[in-house]
Amino acid sequence: MISDLVKNISPFYVMDILEEANRLEASGKEVFHFEVGEPDFSTPAEICAAAVKSIDDGFTKYSSSLGIEKLRNAIADDYKRTYGVQVSHERVIITIGSSPALLMSMLTILDPGDEIIITDPYYACYPQIISVARGVSKKVAIHEEDGYQIDIKLLKKSINSKTKAILVNSPSNPTGTLLEKETMQKVCDLGQLIISDEIYHGLVYGKKENTILEFTDNAIVVSGFSKLYSMTGWRLGYMIVPPNLVRYVQKLQQNLFISANPFVQMAGVEALEKIKIKSGDIAKLFNERRVAMLEALKSIGFEFSYEPMGAFYIFVNSSRFSKDSYKFAFDILENTGVAVTPGIDFSERGNDYLRFSYATSIDSIKSGIEKLGKYLS
Amino acid sequence: MISDLVKNISPFYVMDILEEANRLEASGKEVFHFEVGEPDFSTPAEICAAAVKSIDDGFTKYSSSLGIEKLRNAIADDYKRTYGVQVSHERVIITIGSSPALLMSMLTILDPGDEIIITDPYYACYPQIISVARGVSKKVAIHEEDGYQIDIKLLKKSINSKTKAILVNSPSNPTGTLLEKETMQKVCDLGQLIISDEIYHGLVYGKKENTILEFTDNAIVVSGFSKLYSMTGWRLGYMIVPPNLVRYVQKLQQNLFISANPFVQMAGVEALEKIKIKSGDIAKLFNERRVAMLEALKSIGFEFSYEPMGAFYIFVNSSRFSKDSYKFAFDILENTGVAVTPGIDFSERGNDYLRFSYATSIDSIKSGIEKLGKYLS
Repeated sequence: MISDLVKNISPFYVMDILEEANRLEASGKEVFHFEVGEPDFSTPAEICAAAVKSIDDGFTKYSSSLGIEKLRNAIADDYKRTYGVQVSHERVIITIGSSPALLMSMLTILDPGDEIIITDPYYACYPQIISVARGVSKKVAIHEEDGYQIDIKLLKKSINSKTKAILVNSPSNPTGTLLEKETMQKVCDLGQLIISDEIYHGLVYGKKENTILEFTDNAIVVSGFSKLYSMTGWRLGYMIVPPNLVRYVQKLQQNLFISANPFVQMAGVEALEKIKIKSGDIAKLFNERRVAMLEALKSIGFEFSYEPMGAFYIFVNSSRFSKDSYKFAFDILENTGVAVTPGIDFSERGNDYLRFSYATSIDSIKSGIEKLGKYLS
Repeated sequence: MISDLVKNISPFYVMDILEEANRLEASGKEVFHFEVGEPDFSTPAEICAAAVKSIDDGFTKYSSSLGIEKLRNAIADDYKRTYGVQVSHERVIITIGSSPALLMSMLTILDPGDEIIITDPYYACYPQIISVARGVSKKVAIHEEDGYQIDIKLLKKSINSKTKAILVNSPSNPTGTLLEKETMQKVCDLGQLIISDEIYHGLVYGKKENTILEFTDNAIVVSGFSKLYSMTGWRLGYMIVPPNLVRYVQKLQQNLFISANPFVQMAGVEALEKIKIKSGDIAKLFNERRVAMLEALKSIGFEFSYEPMGAFYIFVNSSRFSKDSYKFAFDILENTGVAVTPGIDFSERGNDYLRFSYATSIDSIKSGIEKLGKYLS
């Protein structure tokens, strides 16, 4: 009675790490959390207050399936202000987090066997979400020595009659890299529909990120409030889609999700109108952590030929120490209390790598990496 | 670039009615909302207060993908208290509403072309959710003259090698009927996996509803907090699954939804621990509305051979007046301000029917149906 689909979903190896880390922590051992994908900051008080007010004001019924107009407008305004692109609020659809937005994107364009091109290494959920929509992930390798930029020739070769879209993610999980403007332009010039996962926008350091909408309108933007506003648990995301797709996504939303939580949507308005202007302060804090993590990793002998400039991850070659990232991550955890994500979660070629998240305090970064250094030497 | 899947999703005809109703209302016309599927009550203050407290307490990060243990325990306790069935909390999975719970149920058991048996008329989203999982809805007709009970012989005949589950919904949308205990037992005796949508539990009048778990453990329960607790917008649901399915549903949840909102989950704990004991009062109010609606409909010449005893709907044969439910619903709205749902939304055989919801005030029920009566005579 179990479908092949769910049988074939790969486990998240990091979940085993997380479980063991929690077990160790419960037993009194100090654990350093460099495995996590969520900021350690609390949700800003203004956002919480807006949610509370909206509960009081009775925003507790279904909203329109496309979302509350005020939030759709605020997102359209944000894209205008931040990137200078004109987006009608009618193309903005509010979702229950960015993952359901990705799922609806896939369901809207994929028939069974159709292909989505993803760059490899990739966010661990991409292939699974594509497989739920019965599509096929066509992986195009990107490499540390190229700064994880896309080889356009290789990308072009991977396009065939089954290709329905190219999925990009800048800043990227797990590498923390941004796509160069020129690269984004060239990707768009291939004429395919682009799905652009912009969930880490705002978390960039010394660079400016670009939305795909600066280069093409033949794109679906998927994003949300989780990372920049420390709203992971709130489940609030959105899509910006070409006008001709709105009605189809709406039908999916009506059937699968009905609507996003309305008082959470109102909190999202507050995030864009009040907190976004302070988001430079958040990025500044993350940048200090980034610098601390990079320095610490270098000081214990890790080498990397690229500098991650966004999100809160660095993808580090650890093949000097081990060629089995899962086993290595467990070794490290058991011996040092340092929790990291094995590279195998992000690529079949990922066994030479570990992902370190710096969404944690500088003290924790310094102490944890020092411990790791002692163990490795 | 548009998938056959989304092209083939039927529209909700009631959405056109709703849009027109809103337009009329905005233009100053009085509208009677008998088309809606959500209670008009506010979410109880205690539930709102619990959410606010949990926001203050920092329940704003991802929870475990299976849900917060306290809520999983509270649901297990509720099934013990309400129905006398023993359910381990480990089989309870918290979801972002009952619709995603249904979707994950389907994805867990269906490979493309597999069949789910549904009784017809059915909740409008069922066939769509099944089609998103690339399954096929096998419809078994149920009839007003049988009190919308299931003809077990007919049901048995519809089972074949592709059948993966039988989906039941008691109390039912759109008919408001409960399955008899004996019928439930016989359905379970067929030995198929049962998916039991129990979202309207608690909203029953002069009868007691049964959970499928009283009859079999070979079942997936899908339910949520929207209806009984007036929490439609909150997006909080759950599944109770056989032990061997937990891990598969968890993998889907991790990839597609991550987790339900944690402070909303804590509000759910409050609903079960504090409001559930008062839910008889809520049911009493709905029962008064039910009686008012049935009387009013009879007084203007509608005839029905069954008495709906649950949810907040009655499915009324309107073939005396029209054999085109969509056109008829529009006629009624334009001429009287009464909004109802055309039967075609719930069955291909539904054109002879209208669904009236009584999730609205008795005054509104009386005035609205009186207006309708004047128009029809």
